[in-house]
Amino acid sequence: MAIELGPNQYGKAETRVVRVYRGDGERHEIRDLNVSTLLRGDFGDAHTHGDQAKVLPTDSQKNTCFALAKEKGVGEIEDYALDLARHFAGEIAPVRSARVEVEEYRWERVSVAGQPHPHTFKRTSDEVRTTAVTVLGITGRKGGASMAWVVSGLKDLVVLKSTGSEFSGFLKDRYTTLAETSDRILATSLTARWRYGWGGRHKSWDEAYDQVRQVLLERFATLHSLALQQTLFEMGRAVLEARDDVAEIRLSAPNKHHFLADLSPFGLDNPGEVFHAADRPYGLIQCAVQRDDAEDPGPAWDSAAAFEG
Amino acid sequence: MAIELGPNQYGKAETRVVRVYRGDGERHEIRDLNVSTLLRGDFGDAHTHGDQAKVLPTDSQKNTCFALAKEKGVGEIEDYALDLARHFAGEIAPVRSARVEVEEYRWERVSVAGQPHPHTFKRTSDEVRTTAVTVLGITGRKGGASMAWVVSGLKDLVVLKSTGSEFSGFLKDRYTTLAETSDRILATSLTARWRYGWGGRHKSWDEAYDQVRQVLLERFATLHSLALQQTLFEMGRAVLEARDDVAEIRLSAPNKHHFLADLSPFGLDNPGEVFHAADRPYGLIQCAVQRDDAEDPGPAWDSAAAFEG
Amino acid sequence: MAIELGPNQYGKAETRVVRVYRGDGERHEIRDLNVSTLLRGDFGDAHTHGDQAKVLPTDSQKNTCFALAKEKGVGEIEDYALDLARHFAGEIAPVRSARVEVEEYRWERVSVAGQPHPHTFKRTSDEVRTTAVTVLGITGRKGGASMAWVVSGLKDLVVLKSTGSEFSGFLKDRYTTLAETSDRILATSLTARWRYGWGGRHKSWDEAYDQVRQVLLERFATLHSLALQQTLFEMGRAVLEARDDVAEIRLSAPNKHHFLADLSPFGLDNPGEVFHAADRPYGLIQCAVQRDDAEDPGPAWDSAAAFEG
Amino acid sequence: MAIELGPNQYGKAETRVVRVYRGDGERHEIRDLNVSTLLRGDFGDAHTHGDQAKVLPTDSQKNTCFALAKEKGVGEIEDYALDLARHFAGEIAPVRSARVEVEEYRWERVSVAGQPHPHTFKRTSDEVRTTAVTVLGITGRKGGASMAWVVSGLKDLVVLKSTGSEFSGFLKDRYTTLAETSDRILATSLTARWRYGWGGRHKSWDEAYDQVRQVLLERFATLHSLALQQTLFEMGRAVLEARDDVAEIRLSAPNKHHFLADLSPFGLDNPGEVFHAADRPYGLIQCAVQRDDAEDPGPAWDSAAAFEG
Repeated sequence: MAIELGPNQYGKAETRVVRVYRGDGERHEIRDLNVSTLLRGDFGDAHTHGDQAKVLPTDSQKNTCFALAKEKGVGEIEDYALDLARHFAGEIAPVRSARVEVEEYRWERVSVAGQPHPHTFKRTSDEVRTTAVTVLGITGRKGGASMAWVVSGLKDLVVLKSTGSEFSGFLKDRYTTLAETSDRILATSLTARWRYGWGGRHKSWDEAYDQVRQVLLERFATLHSLALQQTLFEMGRAVLEARDDVAEIRLSAPNKHHFLADLSPFGLDNPGEVFHAADRPYGLIQCAVQRDDAEDPGPAWDSAAAFEG
Repeated sequence: MAIELGPNQYGKAETRVVRVYRGDGERHEIRDLNVSTLLRGDFGDAHTHGDQAKVLPTDSQKNTCFALAKEKGVGEIEDYALDLARHFAGEIAPVRSARVEVEEYRWERVSVAGQPHPHTFKRTSDEVRTTAVTVLGITGRKGGASMAWVVSGLKDLVVLKSTGSEFSGFLKDRYTTLAETSDRILATSLTARWRYGWGGRHKSWDEAYDQVRQVLLERFATLHSLALQQTLFEMGRAVLEARDDVAEIRLSAPNKHHFLADLSPFGLDNPGEVFHAADRPYGLIQCAVQRDDAEDPGPAWDSAAAFEG
Repeated sequence: MAIELGPNQYGKAETRVVRVYRGDGERHEIRDLNVSTLLRGDFGDAHTHGDQAKVLPTDSQKNTCFALAKEKGVGEIEDYALDLARHFAGEIAPVRSARVEVEEYRWERVSVAGQPHPHTFKRTSDEVRTTAVTVLGITGRKGGASMAWVVSGLKDLVVLKSTGSEFSGFLKDRYTTLAETSDRILATSLTARWRYGWGGRHKSWDEAYDQVRQVLLERFATLHSLALQQTLFEMGRAVLEARDDVAEIRLSAPNKHHFLADLSPFGLDNPGEVFHAADRPYGLIQCAVQRDDAEDPGPAWDSAAAFEG
Repeated sequence: MAIELGPNQYGKAETRVVRVYRGDGERHEIRDLNVSTLLRGDFGDAHTHGDQAKVLPTDSQKNTCFALAKEKGVGEIEDYALDLARHFAGEIAPVRSARVEVEEYRWERVSVAGQPHPHTFKRTSDEVRTTAVTVLGITGRKGGASMAWVVSGLKDLVVLKSTGSEFSGFLKDRYTTLAETSDRILATSLTARWRYGWGGRHKSWDEAYDQVRQVLLERFATLHSLALQQTLFEMGRAVLEARDDVAEIRLSAPNKHHFLADLSPFGLDNPGEVFHAADRPYGLIQCAVQRDDAEDPGPAWDSAAAFEG
């Protein structure tokens, strides 16, 4: 029996890159990103012998995030992440695969006298657009071929239905005290991530993102919910039906409980009007919806989270 | 020399009240609040002798937040806070003054096929609308007169100008290394709180809030900034010029630094295009703008923060 | 009626200064600080005219935090804060008063084979030691006299009593549903801040801090609590009785509710054994305990919080 | 091509269970836990048809956490988690496997006059002890056999070496500007999780936890670090060498950068004395260390994180 190094990766997390585009006159565009890089490859000696000869410093990775924001620019975050990942997988010899994760924070123009201001912006919602790109170098290195997986997503999309949701007919055991309900508040803070397939075609990452997001919102709104499980599955199915470039979607949704306040001690009726929004505990519902003929996801879903729990 | 009880107050913090209004058919309205109550008055015995006879439990205060949300309803948060504070100051004998602070989280309707959905909502930005109401019972108790102060506000309004801001001509000491700049990013997460005067008139709290917020945004956008100090003062002045019902406004603004990335080691120019958004430290600029004839603020600004630092 | 600038202040918040002392051989000491500076004085022109001639950049203030950590060193945080505040109030002409707030994070040595390691440390609890020093320059400037106020404290000291706490005999109104209890869990996350008087004498700030902290803990432990109000007052009184150099102490304590789990539906008794630790809402109890002959606190308690709510 | 349900799971997250043991007289013990349950099994109909007949409500799962804390008690968290997971996998027919994750917050007794107090406690460090248990029901259900995997761990263990760490000899590319250093601060907030093997023997989970934690701390302290990669690998190796009941350990460590303050503009030398503790970005180093003959981990590492990113 021997002790050996297992899976390992390293990189620079949460580099906060802000890119300003100064167009004609004073009209600017901005992209506001949080960028994390993770490299995998021939790094065993760094672990087992402290030998850094093959280790590109995380500081250099950070510099690369800034430099490529200038050299290649920051358009759609998927393209920027692919640029970065291909750079690391293609140019840095010991790197076998590179994963680049990007969060994008959204800004909208401040309105002045009814007109959008050319260079003043306001953060829109907390909702974050995400992408996680994995590029695997194949042969040679420099100039060699590569494979790429793109998982795009969103998180912290907080939605609520004040009716149109029930929960009944569930399994009861000896610890069950929950009453059935035919009308409750359903609320969640959605995390959705979808993997693009090889064969699909889309006009642009932005266009795809916008449509997936809208389909998720509309399905959440229009489905009469019998359970959050059903809502998630139907949201996922609607995305796959709408877009043949999406191979799989994963959804994670805390059930943000809103409990009806008990006003009966005060002689008050409460027909679905006054609620207490609880923090913890919360239900947590997670599912994937996928095509039965989808390609194997490969390393598409392998993130830093696997080491953290 | 004796040891004595000094200023004291107690209450229930962060009761999360969600109020649903079920209108005609399926069209709902929601108000999503975080409510804190603080009572001051004849509570010395509770401290010095452990005698609770005059102490209304914080649990009862929480119940009152829910009950009044039904009995009186939740319209504009200032009115709801006044209802609560007047209840405590007027109905609970030992209470001399009551302070009620409310945060309101904003939701917008989800759009389905271009139409706003009747009962499905999406959280808008992190920006929070606030109010802090103080009611002082005057004489008698039940039915007695009272005085009220209303401070309304907003927080976590994150705004950014990608140009139109400079910082130069500043004082230099032997620890000064900062370069002067005629073009920088100016960004902040604004906290603004304004005190309504006695004499002012307004159509509604909502109307006043909307205008103050818009004036703040427009002034931030349109002023060519020579310093964040100047920007804050001008934002405050514009509010007071626009509304004679506002006696005073206090602004607190972290200077969320965006540092130009140094790309020169890579042979790249960076004319205001690629920035690093820093977390800490940050500048912090705070000022009040007021009318020279404003009434004394009384207890309007006395919050729980005074005990916390 | 005119619109004018009211109270204002500015500075650099949350500069993270870590100071290493390399003693004989390999035995190191570290001080890990979060430093915020706030300057008040002749800064009206910066607000009203954008004129920076009297404004020392917050960047220079940050540099000063680092430079003085070398030039004067970082011993007890009160002395370091006084050094900084006296520097700003004494050396920077437009500054009328300077406030410096310091948080200190505590580290203990890692134990190796039962011995404390010379240069490896582990963060101890989340508890933070604090100080807030205000220095008012009096006349002239350079070399002029000054007055200083020192408020020391701690925050995030989380304590719990699993018995020895009751709550009964309280005022009941029509919204009261809480049951009286003669045995409950009492838990809080304490914020305490105490102001040193002019006349008191102490061996060192560290010694004073250690004693105050220990008195607070012991009184919390030994007092049979009839209410959190009583516990806080007695904790404060004990501090003032123990130390004549403390003029006043302010305590702020969330009542971190632990609710008995209702196990009766499962045929189980629960005599104070299984609890649910709730997040929100929470009671909030705040009081000051002071000497009746204490000097006026002057600006000792004026912090950035006054502008934030 | 069809659209189908993929992997899915659901449960109740973050139930805050506090268990008090009232021993002889007034001497109490407490366990303070954050418990999350995740069930996997025959839940397809809930997703695809909204049929809840096989769905045990997350509310019942929460109740079970409280009830078992009474019925079976809360000793070592691994045993409590196993009790819960075996209950769900064994008693709830549609459940094929159950995962229970527990965080434990540590308390120590407050010292009064040098003696530990019987029922007053103080939170120790932010460091959290964790376990994640997965139980797979095998056949039948009630009374059927089961397999169990136990992953124990810790997180938020913040450690720092003020010397004894270097970083040099690394790969340089055209974006590399980092200087080599033979003496730097090395600091991290460690997450470690170790999987117990089938064959190992240990006296108790507590004993195992204590030893693993101590080995991690000692190895961090004593190893002269050539890189964080090396430090992590050696920490993991030391654990596996010390305990034959550990099959594998996974370590995730942010490199909490401490940058030497540049005091040269002020004419000051800074030989490793004054540092700026940076927030973001940070290096992130992750690795597993394992036995080459370890059993397949099965579902041991499958957590909620896989759906969140």
